[in-house]
Amino acid sequence: CGALLAPESANNPWKYKFTWNPRNVVLAGQGGTAQYRENGRLKFIPFYRLFEEIEEVEIAGVGKFQGYANRDSLGYATPYSLTDTPTLLRGTLRYAGYCGAWDILVKLGLTDNSFQLEATGMTYHDFLKAFLPKNMSLPAVFGAEAVAKLEWLGLMSDKPVARRQGTPAEILQDLLAEKWALQPEDRDLIVMQHQIVYTLEGISKTLLSELVVEGESAARTAIAKTVGLPLAMATKQLAVGKLDLRGVRLPIYAEMYDTILPELETHGIKFKERF
Amino acid sequence: CGALLAPESANNPWKYKFTWNPRNVVLAGQGGTAQYRENGRLKFIPFYRLFEEIEEVEIAGVGKFQGYANRDSLGYATPYSLTDTPTLLRGTLRYAGYCGAWDILVKLGLTDNSFQLEATGMTYHDFLKAFLPKNMSLPAVFGAEAVAKLEWLGLMSDKPVARRQGTPAEILQDLLAEKWALQPEDRDLIVMQHQIVYTLEGISKTLLSELVVEGESAARTAIAKTVGLPLAMATKQLAVGKLDLRGVRLPIYAEMYDTILPELETHGIKFKERF
Repeated sequence: CGALLAPESANNPWKYKFTWNPRNVVLAGQGGTAQYRENGRLKFIPFYRLFEEIEEVEIAGVGKFQGYANRDSLGYATPYSLTDTPTLLRGTLRYAGYCGAWDILVKLGLTDNSFQLEATGMTYHDFLKAFLPKNMSLPAVFGAEAVAKLEWLGLMSDKPVARRQGTPAEILQDLLAEKWALQPEDRDLIVMQHQIVYTLEGISKTLLSELVVEGESAARTAIAKTVGLPLAMATKQLAVGKLDLRGVRLPIYAEMYDTILPELETHGIKFKERF
Repeated sequence: CGALLAPESANNPWKYKFTWNPRNVVLAGQGGTAQYRENGRLKFIPFYRLFEEIEEVEIAGVGKFQGYANRDSLGYATPYSLTDTPTLLRGTLRYAGYCGAWDILVKLGLTDNSFQLEATGMTYHDFLKAFLPKNMSLPAVFGAEAVAKLEWLGLMSDKPVARRQGTPAEILQDLLAEKWALQPEDRDLIVMQHQIVYTLEGISKTLLSELVVEGESAARTAIAKTVGLPLAMATKQLAVGKLDLRGVRLPIYAEMYDTILPELETHGIKFKERF
Protein backbone atom coordinates (compact mmCIF):
# COMPACT_ATOMS: atom_id res chain seq x y z
CA CYS A 1 0.00 0.00 0.00
CA GLY A 2 1.09 3.58 -0.54
CA ALA A 3 -0.33 6.99 0.41
CA LEU A 4 0.96 8.91 -2.61
CA LEU A 5 0.11 11.73 -5.00
CA ALA A 6 -2.09 11.81 -8.10
CA PRO A 7 0.33 11.84 -11.08
CA GLU A 8 -0.24 15.54 -11.91
CA SER A 9 0.49 16.49 -8.27
CA ALA A 10 3.65 14.35 -8.18
CA ASN A 11 5.47 17.41 -9.51
CA ASN A 12 8.69 17.43 -7.48
CA PRO A 13 11.81 15.23 -7.91
CA TRP A 14 10.71 12.91 -5.08
CA LYS A 15 7.17 12.57 -6.48
CA TYR A 16 6.16 12.73 -2.84
CA LYS A 17 4.44 15.18 -0.45
CA PHE A 18 3.01 14.68 3.02
CA THR A 19 -0.60 13.53 2.83
CA TRP A 20 -0.61 12.24 6.40
CA ASN A 21 1.54 12.14 9.56
CA PRO A 22 5.02 13.44 8.52
CA ARG A 23 6.62 11.95 11.62
CA ASN A 24 5.68 8.41 10.55
CA VAL A 25 7.25 8.98 7.15
CA VAL A 26 10.53 10.33 8.56
CA LEU A 27 10.83 7.53 11.12
CA ALA A 28 9.69 4.80 8.68
CA GLY A 29 11.15 1.64 10.14
CA GLN A 30 13.69 3.65 12.18
CA GLY A 31 15.32 1.58 14.88
CA GLY A 32 13.60 -1.66 13.96
CA THR A 33 14.08 -4.72 11.84
CA ALA A 34 11.41 -5.62 9.27
CA GLN A 35 10.18 -9.20 9.56
CA TYR A 36 8.37 -11.35 7.04
CA ARG A 37 8.09 -14.94 5.80
CA GLU A 38 9.26 -16.16 2.42
CA ASN A 39 8.80 -19.73 1.20
CA GLY A 40 8.25 -20.90 4.76
CA ARG A 41 11.38 -19.20 6.13
CA LEU A 42 11.69 -16.16 8.38
CA LYS A 43 13.35 -13.16 6.73
CA PHE A 44 14.70 -10.01 8.39
CA ILE A 45 15.83 -6.64 7.02
CA PRO A 46 17.36 -4.04 9.38
CA PHE A 47 15.89 -0.56 8.85
CA TYR A 48 19.15 0.74 7.41
CA ARG A 49 18.89 -1.69 4.49
CA LEU A 50 15.12 -1.37 3.87
CA PHE A 51 15.39 1.18 1.08
CA GLU A 52 17.96 -0.75 -0.91
CA GLU A 53 15.95 -3.97 -0.94
CA ILE A 54 13.09 -2.87 -3.14
CA GLU A 55 10.76 -4.69 -5.48
CA GLU A 56 8.84 -3.42 -8.48
CA VAL A 57 5.03 -3.52 -8.25
CA GLU A 58 2.77 -2.60 -11.16
CA ILE A 59 -0.79 -1.41 -10.52
CA ALA A 60 -3.32 -1.62 -13.37
CA GLY A 61 -4.04 1.75 -14.93
CA VAL A 62 -1.61 3.66 -12.74
CA GLY A 63 1.89 2.37 -13.43
CA LYS A 64 4.97 1.01 -11.72
CA PHE A 65 5.93 1.55 -8.10
CA GLN A 66 8.78 0.56 -5.78
CA GLY A 67 7.87 -1.49 -2.72
CA TYR A 68 9.87 -1.89 0.49
CA ALA A 69 9.17 -4.18 3.45
CA ASN A 70 7.10 -2.49 6.16
CA ARG A 71 7.88 -3.38 9.81
CA ASP A 72 6.50 -6.66 11.16
CA SER A 73 4.48 -8.51 8.50
CA LEU A 74 4.16 -11.54 10.80
CA GLY A 75 1.88 -9.66 13.20
CA TYR A 76 -0.83 -9.97 10.52
CA ALA A 77 -0.65 -13.76 10.33
CA THR A 78 -2.99 -14.57 13.23
CA PRO A 79 -5.70 -11.87 12.75
CA TYR A 80 -5.96 -12.69 9.03
CA SER A 81 -5.73 -16.50 9.52
CA LEU A 82 -2.53 -16.66 7.46
CA THR A 83 -0.42 -18.59 9.98
CA ASP A 84 0.27 -21.40 7.48
CA THR A 85 0.92 -19.15 4.47
CA PRO A 86 4.51 -19.82 3.34
CA THR A 87 5.05 -16.27 2.06
CA LEU A 88 3.64 -13.29 3.96
CA LEU A 89 4.97 -9.81 3.30
CA ARG A 90 3.46 -6.36 3.83
CA GLY A 91 5.17 -3.57 1.95
CA THR A 92 4.92 0.16 1.34
CA LEU A 93 4.77 1.60 -2.18
CA ARG A 94 6.55 4.69 -3.50
CA TYR A 95 6.99 6.21 -6.94
CA ALA A 96 10.23 5.14 -8.64
CA GLY A 97 13.30 7.06 -7.41
CA TYR A 98 12.05 7.81 -3.89
CA CYS A 99 13.65 4.80 -2.17
CA GLY A 100 17.13 5.33 -3.64
CA ALA A 101 17.22 8.94 -2.40
CA TRP A 102 15.69 8.19 1.02
CA ASP A 103 18.28 5.41 1.37
CA ILE A 104 21.02 8.10 1.43
CA LEU A 105 19.34 9.94 4.33
CA VAL A 106 19.04 6.71 6.33
CA LYS A 107 22.53 5.45 5.50
CA LEU A 108 24.13 8.76 6.54
CA GLY A 109 22.17 8.83 9.81
CA LEU A 110 19.96 11.90 9.13
CA THR A 111 16.83 10.00 10.21
CA ASP A 112 18.22 9.13 13.67
CA ASN A 113 15.79 10.21 16.39
CA SER A 114 17.79 8.99 19.39
CA PHE A 115 20.02 11.95 20.29
CA GLN A 116 19.92 15.75 20.47
CA LEU A 117 22.14 17.69 18.12
CA GLU A 118 23.38 21.19 19.01
CA ALA A 119 22.40 23.12 15.86
CA THR A 120 22.88 26.80 16.76
CA GLY A 121 24.33 28.63 13.74
CA MET A 122 24.15 25.53 11.54
CA THR A 123 23.06 25.63 7.91
CA TYR A 124 21.43 22.61 6.27
CA HIS A 125 24.66 22.05 4.35
CA ASP A 126 26.56 21.96 7.69
CA PHE A 127 23.93 19.48 8.93
CA LEU A 128 24.53 17.19 5.93
CA LYS A 129 28.32 17.52 6.16
CA ALA A 130 28.27 16.51 9.84
CA PHE A 131 27.14 13.06 8.67
CA LEU A 132 29.18 12.82 5.48
CA PRO A 133 32.17 10.46 5.61
CA LYS A 134 35.50 12.08 4.77
CA ASN A 135 36.18 10.32 1.51
CA MET A 136 32.66 9.53 0.28
CA SER A 137 31.44 10.90 -3.04
CA LEU A 138 27.66 10.68 -2.69
CA PRO A 139 27.02 10.53 -6.48
CA ALA A 140 29.60 7.73 -6.89
CA VAL A 141 27.97 5.64 -4.15
CA PHE A 142 24.27 6.48 -4.57
CA GLY A 143 23.95 7.89 -8.12
CA ALA A 144 23.58 11.48 -9.37
CA GLU A 145 19.78 11.31 -9.66
CA ALA A 146 19.32 10.39 -6.00
CA VAL A 147 21.78 13.08 -4.88
CA ALA A 148 19.91 15.69 -6.97
CA LYS A 149 16.84 14.94 -4.80
CA LEU A 150 18.84 15.85 -1.67
CA GLU A 151 20.01 19.03 -3.35
CA TRP A 152 16.40 19.93 -4.26
CA LEU A 153 15.45 19.54 -0.57
CA GLY A 154 18.04 22.20 0.31
CA LEU A 155 20.53 19.91 2.05
CA MET A 156 23.40 21.56 0.18
CA SER A 157 22.12 25.10 0.78
CA ASP A 158 22.96 27.88 3.25
CA LYS A 159 19.42 27.75 4.64
CA PRO A 160 19.77 27.96 8.43
CA VAL A 161 18.48 25.15 10.65
CA ALA A 162 15.54 26.73 12.52
CA ARG A 163 15.98 24.80 15.80
CA ARG A 164 18.73 25.49 18.32
CA GLN A 165 18.76 21.80 19.02
CA GLY A 166 16.85 18.74 17.97
CA THR A 167 17.29 15.17 16.84
CA PRO A 168 18.57 14.69 13.27
CA ALA A 169 15.10 13.35 12.35
CA GLU A 170 13.41 16.52 13.71
CA ILE A 171 15.83 18.81 11.85
CA LEU A 172 15.24 16.84 8.65
CA GLN A 173 11.47 16.90 9.18
CA ASP A 174 11.48 20.73 9.43
CA LEU A 175 12.90 20.84 5.92
CA LEU A 176 10.59 18.18 4.51
CA ALA A 177 7.49 19.82 6.03
CA GLU A 178 8.27 22.87 3.90
CA LYS A 179 9.37 21.18 0.68
CA TRP A 180 6.85 18.35 0.77
CA ALA A 181 3.84 20.47 1.81
CA LEU A 182 0.62 19.50 0.07
CA GLN A 183 -0.58 22.51 -2.00
CA PRO A 184 -4.28 23.52 -2.15
CA GLU A 185 -4.51 22.34 -5.78
CA ASP A 186 -2.88 18.98 -5.02
CA ARG A 187 -4.75 15.71 -5.02
CA ASP A 188 -3.47 12.55 -3.35
CA LEU A 189 -3.63 8.93 -4.42
CA ILE A 190 -4.02 5.68 -2.52
CA VAL A 191 -2.74 2.54 -4.22
CA MET A 192 -3.03 -0.92 -2.71
CA GLN A 193 -2.36 -4.33 -4.17
CA HIS A 194 -2.84 -7.77 -2.65
CA GLN A 195 -0.83 -10.46 -4.43
CA ILE A 196 -2.54 -13.73 -3.57
CA VAL A 197 -0.62 -16.74 -4.81
CA TYR A 198 -2.48 -20.07 -4.70
CA THR A 199 -2.47 -23.52 -6.26
CA LEU A 200 -5.50 -24.84 -8.12
CA GLU A 201 -5.46 -28.36 -9.60
CA GLY A 202 -1.66 -28.42 -9.26
CA ILE A 203 -1.18 -25.13 -11.10
CA SER A 204 0.18 -22.04 -9.32
CA LYS A 205 -1.91 -18.93 -9.94
CA THR A 206 -1.80 -15.33 -8.80
CA LEU A 207 -4.81 -13.17 -8.04
CA LEU A 208 -4.22 -9.44 -7.86
CA SER A 209 -6.74 -7.45 -5.86
CA GLU A 210 -6.18 -3.73 -6.38
CA LEU A 211 -7.48 -0.50 -4.90
CA VAL A 212 -6.87 2.90 -6.46
CA VAL A 213 -8.45 6.00 -4.87
CA GLU A 214 -7.75 9.58 -5.92
CA GLY A 215 -8.43 12.45 -3.56
CA GLU A 216 -10.77 15.32 -4.50
CA SER A 217 -8.58 18.11 -3.15
CA ALA A 218 -5.87 18.84 -0.59
CA ALA A 219 -8.64 19.00 2.03
CA ARG A 220 -10.69 16.00 0.88
CA THR A 221 -7.91 13.47 0.50
CA ALA A 222 -8.06 9.78 -0.40
CA ILE A 223 -6.07 8.93 2.73
CA ALA A 224 -8.63 10.72 4.93
CA LYS A 225 -11.49 8.92 3.17
CA THR A 226 -9.97 5.44 3.26
CA VAL A 227 -8.95 5.76 6.90
CA GLY A 228 -11.94 7.73 8.17
CA LEU A 229 -14.99 6.44 6.29
CA PRO A 230 -14.77 2.80 7.49
CA LEU A 231 -14.61 4.04 11.08
CA ALA A 232 -17.57 6.40 10.51
CA MET A 233 -19.59 3.59 8.93
CA ALA A 234 -18.85 1.20 11.79
CA THR A 235 -19.82 3.92 14.26
CA LYS A 236 -23.10 4.43 12.41
CA GLN A 237 -23.83 0.66 12.46
CA LEU A 238 -23.15 0.69 16.18
CA ALA A 239 -25.37 3.77 16.75
CA VAL A 240 -28.36 2.28 14.92
CA GLY A 241 -27.96 -1.04 16.75
CA LYS A 242 -26.86 -3.11 13.73
CA LEU A 243 -23.49 -4.14 15.21
CA ASP A 244 -23.31 -6.54 18.15
CA LEU A 245 -19.52 -6.42 18.59
CA ARG A 246 -18.29 -4.56 21.67
CA GLY A 247 -14.85 -3.32 22.77
CA VAL A 248 -11.89 -2.36 20.58
CA ARG A 249 -12.07 -4.53 17.47
CA LEU A 250 -10.06 -5.08 14.30
CA PRO A 251 -12.25 -4.79 11.16
CA ILE A 252 -11.87 -8.49 10.38
CA TYR A 253 -15.41 -9.63 11.21
CA ALA A 254 -17.90 -10.35 8.41
CA GLU A 255 -20.68 -8.55 10.28
CA MET A 256 -18.57 -5.38 9.97
CA TYR A 257 -17.14 -5.59 6.44
CA ASP A 258 -20.24 -7.13 4.84
CA THR A 259 -21.98 -3.79 5.30
CA ILE A 260 -18.98 -1.45 5.20
CA LEU A 261 -17.38 -2.65 1.94
CA PRO A 262 -20.55 -2.12 -0.17
CA GLU A 263 -21.09 1.30 1.42
CA LEU A 264 -17.47 2.24 0.64
CA GLU A 265 -18.14 1.43 -3.03
CA THR A 266 -20.69 4.29 -3.13
CA HIS A 267 -17.72 6.57 -2.34
CA GLY A 268 -15.61 5.10 -5.15
CA ILE A 269 -13.56 2.91 -2.81
CA LYS A 270 -13.67 -0.45 -4.55
CA PHE A 271 -11.18 -3.27 -5.09
CA LYS A 272 -10.78 -4.67 -8.60
CA GLU A 273 -9.49 -8.17 -9.15
CA ARG A 274 -7.40 -9.50 -12.02
CA PHE A 275 -5.32 -12.60 -12.71
CA CYS B 1 42.36 1.95 23.03
CA GLY B 2 41.91 -1.76 22.41
CA ALA B 3 41.55 -4.81 24.66
CA LEU B 4 43.22 -7.30 22.34
CA LEU B 5 45.42 -10.39 22.27
CA ALA B 6 49.19 -10.77 22.51
CA PRO B 7 50.41 -11.50 18.94
CA GLU B 8 51.06 -15.23 19.59
CA SER B 9 47.52 -15.64 21.03
CA ALA B 10 45.93 -13.81 18.08
CA ASN B 11 45.80 -17.19 16.37
CA ASN B 12 42.37 -17.19 14.73
CA PRO B 13 41.24 -15.38 11.54
CA TRP B 14 39.67 -12.52 13.56
CA LYS B 15 42.81 -12.10 15.73
CA TYR B 16 40.28 -11.57 18.51
CA LYS B 17 38.99 -13.42 21.58
CA PHE B 18 36.88 -12.23 24.51
CA THR B 19 39.09 -10.80 27.24
CA TRP B 20 36.26 -8.97 28.92
CA ASN B 21 32.43 -8.52 28.76
CA PRO B 22 31.31 -10.30 25.51
CA ARG B 23 27.98 -8.47 25.55
CA ASN B 24 29.71 -5.08 25.19
CA VAL B 25 31.66 -6.34 22.20
CA VAL B 26 28.60 -7.74 20.42
CA LEU B 27 26.55 -4.60 21.04
CA ALA B 28 29.47 -2.20 20.26
CA GLY B 29 27.73 1.00 19.29
CA GLN B 30 24.46 -0.87 18.56
CA GLY B 31 21.52 1.45 18.28
CA GLY B 32 23.51 4.63 18.69
CA THR B 33 25.29 7.25 16.66
CA ALA B 34 28.96 7.95 17.42
CA GLN B 35 29.70 11.64 17.99
CA TYR B 36 32.99 13.50 17.84
CA ARG B 37 34.47 16.85 16.83
CA GLU B 38 36.80 17.40 13.89
CA ASN B 39 38.40 20.75 13.05
CA GLY B 40 35.80 22.53 15.15
CA ARG B 41 32.81 20.78 13.55
CA LEU B 42 30.49 18.14 14.96
CA LYS B 43 30.70 14.75 13.23
CA PHE B 44 28.30 11.81 13.47
CA ILE B 45 28.54 8.19 12.38
CA PRO B 46 25.51 5.88 12.78
CA PHE B 47 26.43 2.50 14.29
CA TYR B 48 25.77 0.70 11.00
CA ARG B 49 28.57 2.61 9.30
CA LEU B 50 31.10 2.57 12.18
CA PHE B 51 33.05 -0.43 10.93
CA GLU B 52 33.50 0.90 7.41
CA GLU B 53 34.90 4.25 8.56
CA ILE B 54 38.20 3.07 9.98
CA GLU B 55 41.58 4.69 10.39
CA GLU B 56 45.02 3.11 10.65
CA VAL B 57 46.87 3.59 13.93
CA GLU B 58 50.45 2.41 14.46
CA ILE B 59 51.72 1.69 17.96
CA ALA B 60 55.49 1.65 18.58
CA GLY B 61 56.91 -1.85 18.90
CA VAL B 62 53.57 -3.60 18.34
CA GLY B 63 52.37 -2.76 14.83
CA LYS B 64 49.40 -1.43 12.92
CA PHE B 65 45.79 -1.45 14.09
CA GLN B 66 42.40 -0.35 12.76
CA GLY B 67 40.53 2.26 14.79
CA TYR B 68 36.79 3.00 14.72
CA ALA B 69 34.90 5.81 16.49
CA ASN B 70 33.60 4.78 19.92
CA ARG B 71 30.21 6.18 21.03
CA ASP B 72 30.12 9.75 22.35
CA SER B 73 33.60 11.31 22.32
CA LEU B 74 32.13 14.69 23.29
CA GLY B 75 31.18 13.44 26.75
CA TYR B 76 34.90 13.55 27.57
CA ALA B 77 35.31 17.24 26.70
CA THR B 78 34.21 18.73 30.03
CA PRO B 79 35.81 16.24 32.50
CA TYR B 80 39.15 16.46 30.65
CA SER B 81 38.95 20.27 30.07
CA LEU B 82 38.98 19.80 26.29
CA THR B 83 35.90 21.91 25.50
CA ASP B 84 37.88 24.19 23.16
CA THR B 85 39.86 21.44 21.42
CA PRO B 86 38.92 21.58 17.72
CA THR B 87 39.38 17.83 17.20
CA LEU B 88 38.28 15.34 19.85
CA LEU B 89 37.79 11.69 18.99
CA ARG B 90 37.86 8.53 21.09
CA GLY B 91 38.25 5.31 19.14
CA THR B 92 38.57 1.58 19.64
CA LEU B 93 41.46 -0.41 18.17
CA ARG B 94 41.34 -3.83 16.51
CA TYR B 95 43.83 -5.92 14.59
CA ALA B 96 43.60 -5.43 10.81
CA GLY B 97 40.75 -7.41 9.20
CA TYR B 98 38.41 -7.44 12.21
CA CYS B 99 36.38 -4.36 11.27
CA GLY B 100 35.68 -5.44 7.69
CA ALA B 101 34.27 -8.78 8.86
CA TRP B 102 32.30 -7.35 11.80
CA ASP B 103 30.85 -4.81 9.37
CA ILE B 104 29.08 -7.68 7.55
CA LEU B 105 27.40 -8.86 10.77
CA VAL B 106 26.17 -5.32 11.53
CA LYS B 107 25.09 -4.56 7.97
CA LEU B 108 23.05 -7.79 7.73
CA GLY B 109 21.38 -7.14 11.09
CA LEU B 110 22.86 -10.07 13.08
CA THR B 111 23.83 -7.75 15.96
CA ASP B 112 20.26 -6.45 16.48
CA ASN B 113 19.20 -6.83 20.10
CA SER B 114 15.71 -5.31 19.79
CA PHE B 115 13.49 -8.28 18.89
CA GLN B 116 13.04 -11.97 19.69
CA LEU B 117 13.63 -14.46 16.92
CA GLU B 118 11.91 -17.85 16.94
CA ALA B 119 14.90 -20.19 16.42
CA THR B 120 13.56 -23.70 17.09
CA GLY B 121 15.14 -26.12 14.61
CA MET B 122 17.35 -23.44 13.09
CA THR B 123 20.97 -24.02 12.14
CA TYR B 124 23.49 -21.18 12.13
CA HIS B 125 23.41 -21.24 8.34
CA ASP B 126 19.60 -20.78 8.48
CA PHE B 127 20.18 -17.89 10.92
CA LEU B 128 22.58 -16.20 8.48
CA LYS B 129 20.30 -16.84 5.49
CA ALA B 130 17.34 -15.22 7.26
CA PHE B 131 19.24 -11.90 7.04
CA LEU B 132 20.83 -12.40 3.64
CA PRO B 133 19.36 -10.32 0.80
CA LYS B 134 18.10 -12.35 -2.15
CA ASN B 135 20.62 -11.22 -4.72
CA MET B 136 23.61 -10.34 -2.57
CA SER B 137 26.92 -12.11 -3.08
CA LEU B 138 28.70 -11.52 0.25
CA PRO B 139 32.23 -11.92 -1.23
CA ALA B 140 31.43 -9.48 -4.05
CA VAL B 141 30.22 -6.82 -1.59
CA PHE B 142 32.48 -7.38 1.41
CA GLY B 143 35.50 -9.33 0.06
CA ALA B 144 36.43 -13.01 0.31
CA GLU B 145 38.73 -12.55 3.31
CA ALA B 146 36.00 -10.99 5.44
CA VAL B 147 33.50 -13.69 4.42
CA ALA B 148 36.03 -16.41 5.33
CA LYS B 149 35.94 -15.06 8.90
CA LEU B 150 32.16 -15.60 9.02
CA GLU B 151 32.64 -19.12 7.72
CA TRP B 152 35.27 -19.82 10.39
CA LEU B 153 32.73 -18.75 13.03
CA GLY B 154 30.35 -21.44 11.78
CA LEU B 155 27.76 -19.13 10.23
CA MET B 156 27.63 -21.33 7.12
CA SER B 157 27.49 -24.59 9.10
CA ASP B 158 24.74 -26.99 10.17
CA LYS B 159 25.49 -26.30 13.84
CA PRO B 160 22.10 -25.91 15.55
CA VAL B 161 21.19 -22.69 17.31
CA ALA B 162 21.07 -23.65 21.00
CA ARG B 163 18.28 -21.28 22.03
CA ARG B 164 14.62 -21.76 21.19
CA GLN B 165 14.34 -18.03 20.91
CA GLY B 166 16.54 -15.03 21.44
CA THR B 167 17.57 -11.76 19.89
CA PRO B 168 19.89 -11.99 16.87
CA ALA B 169 22.66 -10.51 19.07
CA GLU B 170 22.15 -13.24 21.69
CA ILE B 171 22.20 -16.02 19.10
CA LEU B 172 25.38 -14.56 17.58
CA GLN B 173 26.96 -14.19 21.03
CA ASP B 174 26.40 -17.91 21.78
CA LEU B 175 28.57 -18.72 18.77
CA LEU B 176 31.22 -16.11 19.52
CA ALA B 177 31.48 -17.20 23.18
CA GLU B 178 32.57 -20.63 21.92
CA LYS B 179 34.83 -19.59 19.05
CA TRP B 180 36.37 -16.56 20.73
CA ALA B 181 36.92 -18.18 24.16
CA LEU B 182 40.23 -17.22 25.77
CA GLN B 183 42.31 -20.39 26.21
CA PRO B 184 44.34 -21.08 29.39
CA GLU B 185 47.62 -20.51 27.51
CA ASP B 186 46.40 -17.23 25.96
CA ARG B 187 47.70 -13.84 27.00
CA ASP B 188 45.91 -10.60 26.26
CA LEU B 189 47.22 -7.20 25.23
CA ILE B 190 46.11 -3.67 26.01
CA VAL B 191 47.12 -0.97 23.54
CA MET B 192 46.33 2.70 24.01
CA GLN B 193 47.51 5.74 22.12
CA HIS B 194 46.81 9.42 22.73
CA GLN B 195 47.46 11.59 19.69
CA ILE B 196 47.94 15.10 21.02
CA VAL B 197 48.23 17.68 18.27
CA TYR B 198 49.43 21.15 19.34
CA THR B 199 51.03 24.26 17.90
CA LEU B 200 54.36 25.54 19.26
CA GLU B 201 55.88 28.75 17.84
CA GLY B 202 53.57 28.49 14.85
CA ILE B 203 54.55 24.92 14.04
CA SER B 204 52.04 22.05 14.35
CA LYS B 205 53.44 19.10 16.30
CA THR B 206 52.08 15.73 17.42
CA LEU B 207 52.87 14.02 20.69
CA LEU B 208 52.05 10.32 20.92
CA SER B 209 51.55 8.92 24.39
CA GLU B 210 51.34 5.14 24.27
CA LEU B 211 50.53 2.34 26.67
CA VAL B 212 51.18 -1.33 25.88
CA VAL B 213 50.44 -3.96 28.54
CA GLU B 214 50.62 -7.72 28.01
CA GLY B 215 48.74 -10.09 30.28
CA GLU B 216 50.56 -12.83 32.23
CA SER B 217 48.00 -15.56 31.57
CA ALA B 218 44.31 -16.09 30.76
CA ALA B 219 43.59 -15.56 34.47
CA ARG B 220 45.93 -12.61 35.10
CA THR B 221 44.99 -10.44 32.14
CA ALA B 222 46.16 -6.97 31.19
CA ILE B 223 42.52 -5.80 31.01
CA ALA B 224 41.90 -6.97 34.59
CA LYS B 225 45.07 -5.21 35.78
CA THR B 226 44.50 -1.93 33.96
CA VAL B 227 40.86 -1.75 35.07
CA GLY B 228 41.23 -3.22 38.56
CA LEU B 229 44.57 -1.95 39.91
CA PRO B 230 43.74 1.79 39.76
CA LEU B 231 40.55 1.13 41.70
CA ALA B 232 42.40 -1.00 44.27
CA MET B 233 45.05 1.69 44.66
CA ALA B 234 42.47 4.45 45.14
CA THR B 235 40.70 2.25 47.69
CA LYS B 236 43.96 1.77 49.58
CA GLN B 237 44.62 5.55 49.59
CA LEU B 238 41.14 6.06 50.98
CA ALA B 239 41.57 3.33 53.62
CA VAL B 240 44.84 4.79 54.96
CA GLY B 241 43.39 8.30 55.01
CA LYS B 242 45.51 9.75 52.18
CA LEU B 243 42.57 10.69 49.94
CA ASP B 244 40.23 13.50 50.93
CA LEU B 245 37.79 13.11 48.01
CA ARG B 246 34.38 11.66 48.88
CA GLY B 247 31.52 10.32 46.77
CA VAL B 248 31.69 8.72 43.30
CA ARG B 249 34.60 10.36 41.49
CA LEU B 250 36.23 10.20 38.09
CA PRO B 251 40.01 9.60 38.35
CA ILE B 252 40.80 13.08 37.01
CA TYR B 253 42.10 14.67 40.22
CA ALA B 254 45.85 15.16 40.69
CA GLU B 255 45.60 13.95 44.29
CA MET B 256 44.47 10.58 42.89
CA TYR B 257 46.65 10.09 39.84
CA ASP B 258 49.81 11.62 41.34
CA THR B 259 50.05 8.58 43.60
CA ILE B 260 48.32 5.99 41.41
CA LEU B 261 50.31 6.48 38.16
CA PRO B 262 53.73 5.91 39.81
CA GLU B 263 52.38 2.85 41.66
CA LEU B 264 50.99 1.47 38.35
CA GLU B 265 54.51 1.74 36.88
CA THR B 266 55.71 -0.84 39.45
CA HIS B 267 53.25 -3.23 37.75
CA GLY B 268 54.62 -2.44 34.28
CA ILE B 269 51.73 -0.11 33.40
CA LYS B 270 53.56 2.93 32.04
CA PHE B 271 52.93 5.35 29.19
CA LYS B 272 55.79 6.12 26.80
CA GLU B 273 55.85 9.34 24.85
CA ARG B 274 57.26 10.00 21.41
CA PHE B 275 57.01 12.76 18.81
